[in-house]
Amino acid sequence: MSQEDRFHELDRQECLRLLAKVPVGRVVYTRQALPAVLPVNFCLDTDDSVLLRTSSGSELVRAIDGVVVAFEADEFDVETRSGWSVVVTGRATVVTDAAECERLSQVGPTSWMPLRNAVFVRIESEMVTGRDLR
Amino acid sequence: MSQEDRFHELDRQECLRLLAKVPVGRVVYTRQALPAVLPVNFCLDTDDSVLLRTSSGSELVRAIDGVVVAFEADEFDVETRSGWSVVVTGRATVVTDAAECERLSQVGPTSWMPLRNAVFVRIESEMVTGRDLR
Repeated sequence: MSQEDRFHELDRQECLRLLAKVPVGRVVYTRQALPAVLPVNFCLDTDDSVLLRTSSGSELVRAIDGVVVAFEADEFDVETRSGWSVVVTGRATVVTDAAECERLSQVGPTSWMPLRNAVFVRIESEMVTGRDLR
Repeated sequence: MSQEDRFHELDRQECLRLLAKVPVGRVVYTRQALPAVLPVNFCLDTDDSVLLRTSSGSELVRAIDGVVVAFEADEFDVETRSGWSVVVTGRATVVTDAAECERLSQVGPTSWMPLRNAVFVRIESEMVTGRDLR
């Protein structure tokens, strides 16, 4: 069995279907010139962008607003050594439009913790890649 | 309940204890000037560095050998909205010393897939941070 037999590239629709299954992913960005990563709960918007909710004054918002980031989610099964991983790469922006904030407060993610001055952050799904390991 | 009540910073020893519990983490690095992330199985060495095994010709090795990367692992429980996350930040290097490669072939991680020209990659645990969400 070769490496190629076990890895399978996923198309965009399959990636988005898998992303929608899990509640937590990881924002990958740069902080003070070092690679940084932070797990967050999220949901997908109707345009397939990734939506997070966090505090407006958070270090995460300061670091990623207006910047291209990666967002990763995965699931693995240790027993069968199988699983999948999906990465969305795109620009992150704090949602500032009042009507859009109102809409997202109905359909967007709720944070797992109480937030001060909560904002929504959108990561555009400009590039969506994924693979599964069988 | 404030945000501070739910988040708890973990000390280095607690972080390393949690890391040792899980088989898969994520290497966070930069690829062609974009943030990149790849899940890998791993283990901790006796000096607390993170050990991976991959192909010598892999894109991952080309991107991270000699470079400071982050390595993240976590566990979350959706029902209780609790969990933990640990990040190791440090230099990644391909292990080239023959005696060390021999030792790691006994105690190091095995890859979840067949590899061509397998090498071990070590990520020094220069900075270890973590937190749990209760």
